[in-house]
Formats: sequence, C-alpha cells, structure tokens
Amino acid sequence: MINIAILGYGTIGSGVVEVLSTNGESIKKRAGDQIDIKYILDLKEFPGDPMMEKIVHDINIILEDSDVMIVVEVMGGVEPAYTFVKQALLKGKSVITSNKELVATHGAELLDMAKERNLNFLFEASVGGGIPIIRPLNQSLTADEIVEITGILNGTTNYILSRMSEDGLDFNTALQNAQKMGYAERNPAADIEGHDACRKIAILSSLAFGMQVDFEDIYTEGITKITDTDIRYAKAMGARIKLFASSVKENDKHVYAMVAPVLIKASHPLYSVNDVFNGIFVRGNVIGDVMFYGSGAGKLPTASAVVADIVDAAKHLNKNIWTIWSSKKLELTDINQVQHRFFIRVEGNSLTVKEQISKLFGEVEEITTEDVVGEYAFITSSIAEQELNEIKSKLNGILSVIRVRF
Amino acid sequence: MINIAILGYGTIGSGVVEVLSTNGESIKKRAGDQIDIKYILDLKEFPGDPMMEKIVHDINIILEDSDVMIVVEVMGGVEPAYTFVKQALLKGKSVITSNKELVATHGAELLDMAKERNLNFLFEASVGGGIPIIRPLNQSLTADEIVEITGILNGTTNYILSRMSEDGLDFNTALQNAQKMGYAERNPAADIEGHDACRKIAILSSLAFGMQVDFEDIYTEGITKITDTDIRYAKAMGARIKLFASSVKENDKHVYAMVAPVLIKASHPLYSVNDVFNGIFVRGNVIGDVMFYGSGAGKLPTASAVVADIVDAAKHLNKNIWTIWSSKKLELTDINQVQHRFFIRVEGNSLTVKEQISKLFGEVEEITTEDVVGEYAFITSSIAEQELNEIKSKLNGILSVIRVRF
Repeated sequence: MINIAILGYGTIGSGVVEVLSTNGESIKKRAGDQIDIKYILDLKEFPGDPMMEKIVHDINIILEDSDVMIVVEVMGGVEPAYTFVKQALLKGKSVITSNKELVATHGAELLDMAKERNLNFLFEASVGGGIPIIRPLNQSLTADEIVEITGILNGTTNYILSRMSEDGLDFNTALQNAQKMGYAERNPAADIEGHDACRKIAILSSLAFGMQVDFEDIYTEGITKITDTDIRYAKAMGARIKLFASSVKENDKHVYAMVAPVLIKASHPLYSVNDVFNGIFVRGNVIGDVMFYGSGAGKLPTASAVVADIVDAAKHLNKNIWTIWSSKKLELTDINQVQHRFFIRVEGNSLTVKEQISKLFGEVEEITTEDVVGEYAFITSSIAEQELNEIKSKLNGILSVIRVRF
Repeated sequence: MINIAILGYGTIGSGVVEVLSTNGESIKKRAGDQIDIKYILDLKEFPGDPMMEKIVHDINIILEDSDVMIVVEVMGGVEPAYTFVKQALLKGKSVITSNKELVATHGAELLDMAKERNLNFLFEASVGGGIPIIRPLNQSLTADEIVEITGILNGTTNYILSRMSEDGLDFNTALQNAQKMGYAERNPAADIEGHDACRKIAILSSLAFGMQVDFEDIYTEGITKITDTDIRYAKAMGARIKLFASSVKENDKHVYAMVAPVLIKASHPLYSVNDVFNGIFVRGNVIGDVMFYGSGAGKLPTASAVVADIVDAAKHLNKNIWTIWSSKKLELTDINQVQHRFFIRVEGNSLTVKEQISKLFGEVEEITTEDVVGEYAFITSSIAEQELNEIKSKLNGILSVIRVRF
C-alpha cells in the first residue's frame, strides 16, 4: 500500500479523490500497488464528506508521517505551495502538482531537489489539463531537437474566440457567456490578458529546450483588443483567430517566445481546436509535426493527469525519472527582432490611405469583407516587430494589428 | 557507451543511423550515455556507405557479443524477425522494433520474455509512425479506463481518400497518384484492404484493454468500394469518409473492434486528419477525449520513434518498464450485434424505391446531392449489422453502404 496526502480539497483535489475511487482497481494494477489517501490538507472542515476523517489543517502532520510517500499539491498559487512542496521533498516524499505558477517559477529548483534525493517532482497537470504533454516531451520526443512548440493553452480565451467566430458575438458578450458557463473567473484578467498561457508556455519551453525560460521574459498580449470586425475579416480570409503561446527556435539557434492572438488557416493543425479544448503543436527536426489535443481544464481531465503522475511516482519510488530542465537561463531573442506578417486595419479607404500604406509597407495584400466600410485592411510582408512599431508611430487611425501565421 | 545493433538496413534502419548521427549530442544527454552502433545486420553489402564496416550477415555475431545491450529490429515481417528477437531477449538484450506484424502476432509473449529477464521490449514505431501513442497509453493514460480508441492509422488510404475528396479523383486515379508519390506500394492490398490498419488497432486495443486482441478477430473492410459518388454525397452532408480502425467498449463491458470506412463530420477530432497524416483518438472514462496527430509513416518520423525507444531502453537497462498486455485473449463482441447508422445508396429514385425502403428500414433520413440522378440515398436509424445484412438480402440494386459516425 502506498500512502499519499493531498494538499487542497478544492475542485482538483476532490477530482483526484473521485478518480482514485472510480478507477481504483485498474490504477492498482498499473501502479503495482494500492494507492491510499491518508490525509487531505485544507483550511476548511468537510462535515459529512466521505473524506472528513482524513482532513487535517496542519502540514506538519503530513510532513512528519513517514508513511506518506507521495504528496499531491493541488492548492494553486506560489505560496504556501512552494514552502510545502520543498518541505515534502526534504522529508523524502515525492511531489505531484497541477500548479502552473509554482512550476513556472520554481520548476528547475524543485526538479533538482527531487533528483538529488532520488525522488520525483511531476507536473503533467500543470499544462493542458488532461492532455499528455509533459511526459511525451520528456520521454517520447527524446530523439528530436525541438524547433517549435505552440499551444492553444487557455480554454477560456479559446472558448471566447470560438463564440465570437461561430455565434458572431462581440468580445464582452462572449466573455459574459464564458463566465455564465463557468469557463471564466469573475476576474478574468489572468486568462484574457494571456498570463495563464504565458506560464504554461514557459514550462513547455523550459522542457523543450532544457533550460530555464522565465515567464517574465515572454512577450504577452491577450485577446481583449480582438473585435467582431476582426473576426469578420478572418472569416473572409478563411482564417481563424487563436491565442497562440509559442516558442520557436530560429536558424537552429535563437529562441523567441510569445503569447499573442494570431490568424491561422485550416492547414494549421491547431485550426480545429475550438471551444474550451486545448491543443499543443510540436515540431521536431526529425519527427516533423505532431499535435496533442484534449480537455485543457476541468475537474476530471485534470485529475486524470494528476493521478497518472501518482501512478508514475508509485512505480518509481526511490528512482528519479530524469527530466532535463537546467536552472541556467535561456536568453530569448529580443521580441523587436522577430519577424511576422501582420494583418492591419486602418481608418479610411483604398482611395485615401492606399498610397500612404504602400509608401510605409511596400507591397501589401489587400483584404476586403462585405459589410465593413470606412476602413482599409491589408496584410504586410514579413517585417520585424520593431519596424512595425516604427511605422505605426507614423500612421494614424490604426484599428487593429494581428500577427499572421500563414 | 551503450552498444546497439540494428537488424535491417532499409529505409527505417538508415533513418535510425541518420537520427543518431544528426541529434547525437542531445540524445546522449537524454539517454545519459553515448549510443553507439556496433553492428548492422543485412543480407546486402553497402560498399562506400559510412556504415559499411559495421555490416554483418550473421545474426550470431550480434547475439554472441555481450557488448550489445540493445537490438533494434527494423526488418519487418514475422520471420525471421520473431526468431531473432526471441534469441536477442534470451541473450539478455533489450529489443526495440517498428514491426507491426511481429508485435500484433507475438507482442504479449515477447513482453513477458522481456519482463522475466528485467529487459525491455519496446515498439513505439509500430503504430502511428512518429506519433507518441504507445508510451502515452502505457504511462500517461494510467488513471483511466479506456472506453474507445479509434485511429486513422494508415497514411496511404488516408491520402487516397483525401485526394478523392479534395481533387475529385476516382479511387483508381487516386491510388495511382499515391503510387507515383511513393505513398503506396506496387501491391497496395495490405493498405487499401485495411490489413495494415487492422494489425495496428490490434496492438492499440491490446494495450488499451490489457488483454490479447487477435487481429484475425477484427472485422476488416478496406476502401476499395468507395466511389467518387460516395464522396459527393459526403460533401453534400458536410462530412468526410475516413478509414477508421476502432475498438469500443460498450456498456462498460463488451469490446467490439473493426476497420471500416466511416462518415464523420467536422465535430469529430479526426476530421482534420488529412493526406498521409495519422491521428489517434482516445476516450477515457475520466480524461474525456484526447487526440494524437502526426506523420504516421516516413523514414525520419518512424526513426524518431525508434530512437526514442532506444533512449528509453538505455535509461532502463536491467529495469523493465511495465506494460500491461496479458496473453489472455479478449473475446470481442460478435460484429453482427454491433449497431450503427448506415448510409445507403440504391438504384432507383424516391418514387420507385422510397416505399420499399421505409418498409424495410422504418424512418430514414433522405440525402440528396446535385448531379447524381437515378439513385436514392439515405441514412438509417441505428441498427445491428446482422439486421442490415438481412435487409440487404431483400433489397436489389444496392450501390453503397457506409457506416455513419455522427
């Protein structure tokens, strides 16, 4: 029997309890032993809950109990999670977490601590909910040099963009819709400003390139500026707007990373990732393109990933599963040097602004859509962000700028 | 240094050599040691080839050399691969293979032999080329009971169906096209009759359900009967025809398995898997739906999967990676009992056959498309295969029957 403790009895914590109970038999077979929940740490009491007798309020009860071999941290936030996780590792317990802030901020250090002690620090559920991506990156794509990793990593924003595109809603209505459905928090900033996706791509990039990618270094732009008019143009082009979180290695050397809305067409593997689903696209130098798709959040899918980590930790007691994520910082390319094609809308019409646009941008591809008048829309050739910014300062009446990935 | 031997210097064998050389540095880091090719077994000589001095013609040289810790079998076919692989395991060497016939036929036995000896028998490349699917099934989806596993597992047939759909080609022209592109063999039977996909779904089903699924038991139907008229109807419905290889657990109990063309709509995650790409859809009872996508064949993607297995075997010398695939046979549901909706085309028109159709099938959904006359097309309600067959014997002029998955 392998005793575990769960830190946090919220949505994911109770999902873990449910999964361990629903699939107990097959989990036992796969882990090679019975997994038993000995403690659940939470501030609250849960009178009448089947787990009520396992609830404790003091982390030290868990830390001091040498029967507990695996600690499952599903509280979220950096503190006190970070302190608790470190203490657990120091006490010789492996740790599983679903906590993206913790992993993005302290992943390299916690992995090192686990390795030094022949323990494991696993975090499959921290990115992409139930989608297996951390373990495939670590253990399946080992023959490749990763050239690109791009994800639709935030279900809330993907849902909002899908509703805008499919139901013709404007941003605010789609957001309210998402809040009603329980897909968006009352304070949705972390999602719609791109911060959630930013932490997740920081984790994936650190694993893909084996070095620390600080999330603070990643250029991050949310979806709050996307309007229903942008969506109308996207449709006219046969394209969709998606919030991409990307790390790309250029010329086999420099890596740039960014979170931003982009226009993509049906030929992109992430084009069909709609609603609250997540998708992660990986390009390797020998495997070519692969894509992983599934529920990026939700109680049971996330709990499924947490429990899969518990099974892995149970099979690897006292044996570290090697993960390459050095604490050495990866210096990202200055975002100003990164080149893209840009979709731009400006006030005016082809008579009034066309000449100025071609002076500033050279040859552009004009985009038109029915019903939209009083503006001029086009796609530039590939130019650096810096160049774009310089041109923007000379151009009045800019309505929209979206990067193009086709 | 870890010495390996490669059995077979064909497309995949030379791909493995190329990947090990191209990405040698990062592979060394991930494997924890240098991987060195000591021998390559092949019937032919390769004068002038950089590997020419490593070529041997006698398997015993490899078997008797205790320096060789990992044997990579990429010859294909059951014999002599089966004999060589068994001998290698008996000599204490871990084995990697890309050989679907070998794994489908003898997988359970070879896994047992490896486990008894604390060795590994790994076969990621046998299904889905470069797509990580075997390892995710074994190690990532461990918290779930698998309810369904469905793949587009054959690139050749998917390419043919894509060309028929996108370019309006008929079957024979699309097949010749695939042969010209090198995507189809001169004798394409194994692909177009569904046998290749059948062996692959047998492997995936055995892993998903933990018991032996014999490929001979799987109902298998190829794509040779699909016509451009079927495709025209599919388009009229907003659907696509795909060759699905499926195992489905019904009522939490009985598993049925089949390889057959099906009609799907855009809401299915495999809808966008086109051309030579493969996709594998997995439904678990807690994770929900996940999908894996990538190159299902090709020299480098397949070699990438083989090398990832080499890295895993190198990290687990003398430590078996647990795989649940018992030799106990899984009895599949009699295909006659399986229910589907069916798309059916018959000669005639709504005036001449409609009454007979509703007598035989009850209420049906009529399907029409422009340009096609002289026939009547419809979708039945959900009925058992047996019932369909009985009705078919009473119905003249059947032009086409395709299962519907929406």
